[in-house]
Amino acid sequence: MPITHRVYNFAAGPAVLPMPVLEEIQRDLIALPGVGMSILEISHRSKTLESIMAQAEADIRALADIPDNYRVLFLQGGASLQFSMVPMNLLDAGAVADYIDAGSWAEKAIDEARKVGQVHVAASTKAEGYARIPEPREMTFSPGASYVHITSNNTIEGTQYRQLPDVGDVALVSDTSSDMFSRPIDVRRHALVYAGAQKNMGPAGVTLVIIRDDLVRRAAGRKSSLPTMMSYAVAAEHGSLYNTPPVFAIYALGLVMKWLLAQGGLAAIERVNERKAAALYAEIDRSGFYRGTAAAPDRSRMNVTFRLATEDLEKRFVAGATAAGLDGLKGHRAVGGMRASIYNAFPEDGVAALVDFMKDFERRHG
Amino acid sequence: MPITHRVYNFAAGPAVLPMPVLEEIQRDLIALPGVGMSILEISHRSKTLESIMAQAEADIRALADIPDNYRVLFLQGGASLQFSMVPMNLLDAGAVADYIDAGSWAEKAIDEARKVGQVHVAASTKAEGYARIPEPREMTFSPGASYVHITSNNTIEGTQYRQLPDVGDVALVSDTSSDMFSRPIDVRRHALVYAGAQKNMGPAGVTLVIIRDDLVRRAAGRKSSLPTMMSYAVAAEHGSLYNTPPVFAIYALGLVMKWLLAQGGLAAIERVNERKAAALYAEIDRSGFYRGTAAAPDRSRMNVTFRLATEDLEKRFVAGATAAGLDGLKGHRAVGGMRASIYNAFPEDGVAALVDFMKDFERRHG
Repeated sequence: MPITHRVYNFAAGPAVLPMPVLEEIQRDLIALPGVGMSILEISHRSKTLESIMAQAEADIRALADIPDNYRVLFLQGGASLQFSMVPMNLLDAGAVADYIDAGSWAEKAIDEARKVGQVHVAASTKAEGYARIPEPREMTFSPGASYVHITSNNTIEGTQYRQLPDVGDVALVSDTSSDMFSRPIDVRRHALVYAGAQKNMGPAGVTLVIIRDDLVRRAAGRKSSLPTMMSYAVAAEHGSLYNTPPVFAIYALGLVMKWLLAQGGLAAIERVNERKAAALYAEIDRSGFYRGTAAAPDRSRMNVTFRLATEDLEKRFVAGATAAGLDGLKGHRAVGGMRASIYNAFPEDGVAALVDFMKDFERRHG
Repeated sequence: MPITHRVYNFAAGPAVLPMPVLEEIQRDLIALPGVGMSILEISHRSKTLESIMAQAEADIRALADIPDNYRVLFLQGGASLQFSMVPMNLLDAGAVADYIDAGSWAEKAIDEARKVGQVHVAASTKAEGYARIPEPREMTFSPGASYVHITSNNTIEGTQYRQLPDVGDVALVSDTSSDMFSRPIDVRRHALVYAGAQKNMGPAGVTLVIIRDDLVRRAAGRKSSLPTMMSYAVAAEHGSLYNTPPVFAIYALGLVMKWLLAQGGLAAIERVNERKAAALYAEIDRSGFYRGTAAAPDRSRMNVTFRLATEDLEKRFVAGATAAGLDGLKGHRAVGGMRASIYNAFPEDGVAALVDFMKDFERRHG
């Protein structure tokens, strides 16, 4: 293999993957050991895939301590398809679903749910540019809601829930696309968790869904009226093999799960992620030259958003960083400025390199 | 790289890919040349992906001579999700959609369409075990139908349309999942063509949709009521980038398209595919020891189905073939016996090896 220069990839997702995972994929790309075919070629009805999927599921269950009364599903379409699948499967006729509106992706989830049934916005920080997570006392839940939906980490605005809202016995549904498996997750407090893989868990192309059995049963009641591919009940019955699944993406996700276990699991990776985020926020707060955009108590450990005094300076910052091998730092247009996405596989020396660049940039432009 | 033994993979899909494609994926897996990141890590908003998708589309347009008034979309969910998207986007209220029921997958498409609206089965060979394609004189089309749906190749039953039904001005929709780009396709005679990639075009995880502009406009009328991810109009507006697409699968499909062009395009690959199929059918017909299950005029060049006198012999055949490095020959349970899937990338020497094995098996058991 040629030695290849790699840059630091701060993109919001798809994002950086662990080098040992990339190396294993590369090594076995022509033929999986003992199989004689590439992972890109194996039948989805083969024992090889069966065992890859079973191992990935077992590792996910071990990582997140998932109880037996939850199913683990590998779907397609990303969080955006889940925005529709959740209400189509779970929003009861005549009932209401509660959504907490704390970011741009939460808002998209709400828009899709409104096409299906009645939505109550239990709290919103939209008027504040989603710069913070609503406080528990601001949340007004509907009696008898079909579920409560949250977005655990707001990729665009750089905020993250530190604690789950108390929804009592109501089913808590969480879009964890941008922080899944970056920290421990108490699956027992959720009824359904979903996440596109392409930030912390693997390449784009597979969506992880963890769903409690009673919700699968609820979904089973509408199996005959829903598009078969949109039914959680069908996916659960067929072990995610109703039709050809995204084989390669599941395989790669499985390798990342193994890598996470080898790092010491979710508590261990959380410590690394906290260190990386703390280093960046410390630099942002050091002199006032940089300005964090998210309310300090709600700052995300995944997506660190910050601005400079003028848009011109921000442009120079991004261009200079890119030239220095620090890629993908341009912020989302909704927030502006810069965003450093530092998911699980983002290396600590990349954070150190960005901190150095920030100090140097301040010296030159401060 | 270690030298790795490869078997002949006769699976019905996912299926064998061209070696030069696997080798290029392997070579660039850690970092795309000049990019410094893996294809598994690049942002879906990057110029790199933009150019990969544009090149894949240009190559697809060149391969199939696609007119300018058709859009090329890269979606997820396979043909099974298209079974729902087609009627949800295109079956007009109060109107009827005509379906030709010539195989197990056509039947599934019909089941999904019936959840959405009114379906007329324009012809069916179900009573004959789908052993043949209906003849034109058997087809009864509805006046003013929203569209006519066919399945161009029946993966399970081993039959294939040799000519398209004459549907006049009605929109012809074709599920070409198992023969797309194995032979020339007259896109102008279709209004919509869809195909999961994992047989002739690439790995599992991406679905190719070619849709005429007037159908995109028809779909636009229901954009606000459909799940956003299910709307052809949204996918077309956003150039398949409404949300994160299956980046790797699109990249791999693009490499297969380049390989197809290098083979001389669709007319050239058709000649190879005809040679491979002819060799197998000649062996099946040679002595009467083997029995083809599909009506001779409708025999598929992709999926060659055949049986032996007893199920016990068939079991021995499949086991012996597997031991000889001829993998995936067990037929679908709906037909029984054996099925040799010989898609674009399946090598001619693999067909020769199977013919040799068949002769030898007949000598030992005939």
